[in-house]
Amino acid sequence: MSQFTDIVEKKLISYLPKTDNEDIQELVSSMEYSLMAGGKRVRPMLTVEFAKLCGGSEEAAMPFACALEMIHTYSLIHDDLPCMDNDDLRRGKPTNHKVYGEATALLAGNGLLTHAFEVLVSDEAIRLNGYDKCAKAVRVLSECAGVNGMLGGQMIDLESEGKSVDVEHLKVMDNKKTGALMIAAAKLGCISAGATEEQFEAACEYASDIGLAFQIIDDMLDITSTTEELGKPVGSDDENEKSTYAALLGLEECRRLAGELTDKAVSSLGIFGDRAKVLNDFAVYLLNREK
Amino acid sequence: MSQFTDIVEKKLISYLPKTDNEDIQELVSSMEYSLMAGGKRVRPMLTVEFAKLCGGSEEAAMPFACALEMIHTYSLIHDDLPCMDNDDLRRGKPTNHKVYGEATALLAGNGLLTHAFEVLVSDEAIRLNGYDKCAKAVRVLSECAGVNGMLGGQMIDLESEGKSVDVEHLKVMDNKKTGALMIAAAKLGCISAGATEEQFEAACEYASDIGLAFQIIDDMLDITSTTEELGKPVGSDDENEKSTYAALLGLEECRRLAGELTDKAVSSLGIFGDRAKVLNDFAVYLLNREK
Repeated sequence: MSQFTDIVEKKLISYLPKTDNEDIQELVSSMEYSLMAGGKRVRPMLTVEFAKLCGGSEEAAMPFACALEMIHTYSLIHDDLPCMDNDDLRRGKPTNHKVYGEATALLAGNGLLTHAFEVLVSDEAIRLNGYDKCAKAVRVLSECAGVNGMLGGQMIDLESEGKSVDVEHLKVMDNKKTGALMIAAAKLGCISAGATEEQFEAACEYASDIGLAFQIIDDMLDITSTTEELGKPVGSDDENEKSTYAALLGLEECRRLAGELTDKAVSSLGIFGDRAKVLNDFAVYLLNREK
Repeated sequence: MSQFTDIVEKKLISYLPKTDNEDIQELVSSMEYSLMAGGKRVRPMLTVEFAKLCGGSEEAAMPFACALEMIHTYSLIHDDLPCMDNDDLRRGKPTNHKVYGEATALLAGNGLLTHAFEVLVSDEAIRLNGYDKCAKAVRVLSECAGVNGMLGGQMIDLESEGKSVDVEHLKVMDNKKTGALMIAAAKLGCISAGATEEQFEAACEYASDIGLAFQIIDDMLDITSTTEELGKPVGSDDENEKSTYAALLGLEECRRLAGELTDKAVSSLGIFGDRAKVLNDFAVYLLNREK
């Protein structure tokens, strides 16, 4: 997995926009700062593995995988802004606006969001996937990152502040806020590979289940982990009076539910047989992660 | 022209995302608020007229035209935010964050930016233009709105604050900040129509020249117009100590330069003969506008 992370990170760097203008270079630097600030590269991993599982190639899926990681990174930069969560620390480093200022952080997020779509239809992406698959990738990414996907989840989160909500409400929110980009990761891999309808559906079910498990584990780590290990302050959910699975269900039930979702994700990939081993192991790795 | 504005505005509304979730509806409402807050619809007009001029249709160009207007609107919402220009008034109405709050305004801008790409590859856009033209439209829009286009211009603007800059610097900045989306408008029309290389180049020259003229007129109106007429406070450039063409060159030289650029834009369309009359008249209309 660390080998894959190295490959993705080299690609991410190579896909960043180039400029001779020194003012604009400052903007590119701020984009690179957050893009290269670590992270588990969960989404690119899913895209590439689903592409390979459905008969495609890592090479062809890579522009889609990296575009998605740019979208994920933009969402973190904007989430950390003072008008949103107002966070100072992310992955053990100062957040983008703490280093570059709010205005540049705003533009850096917009830059990554906009550039993701350029990467999806780059010469390389078109050469390896063709116009039709690239256009379909644009459709999937814009839908999953958009108002009925991730942005919708962020909006529900905003409107939930200070309200007491139930587990069903959290599920609707997280299915969009976290789940949508996980599902995008699976779909983008399938599109690149030209997957069958059956493969496509299995991939989406897997992604949806590990997406929810991922969020539940996140909530638990906010209680059980340390700031050093997590790279951001623990206990922030409690401090911000956020309703979480951990608070509503307790740690034991959370652990059970995350395990159940992981089992369900694994069984969704039954149609692929032993070839799904990497993705099955990955689901278990995400379940047992400590940061 | 007001007939065209009506058609575009109906289309813009129809392209907005739909939702049954009331929290998300608030986000869609804030997107609609800014999208429908008036505006001259200059960019959609250019896209549709260039499509028609190059043998395409208004119908096929419309998704591209509306996607571009969504990008333009997102840039205005984010530009007005407290961490950017901190403006309270836009087109005679309270700015988005004054009505919906900063967090929602941030998401509304992101929503319009993301949704623009969904519109470019919508079923309607694909049916009327095909996958190849839609993918090329994504490429043009992401490049022109991105780091080496509009966002780069905004970054140069940020970095220029409090510095005394010359006219050449302003031109580099505005060629990106304002010019890039004008050029995108022309290119998107040409792509939809399947224009020849010669037509494509003529369209880009025209758009680049009226883009710069547009910005020069904007600077002049900030001095010569009234707040009521302009829909935003006049004198704000002076107050923000912004270097402008008007301040650096004087009103008379600005008027001459804008006129020269308009003449040049018109002559770029010589290859189209009389059929370019609508676009020629439009360039003159923009030169003589009072808001």
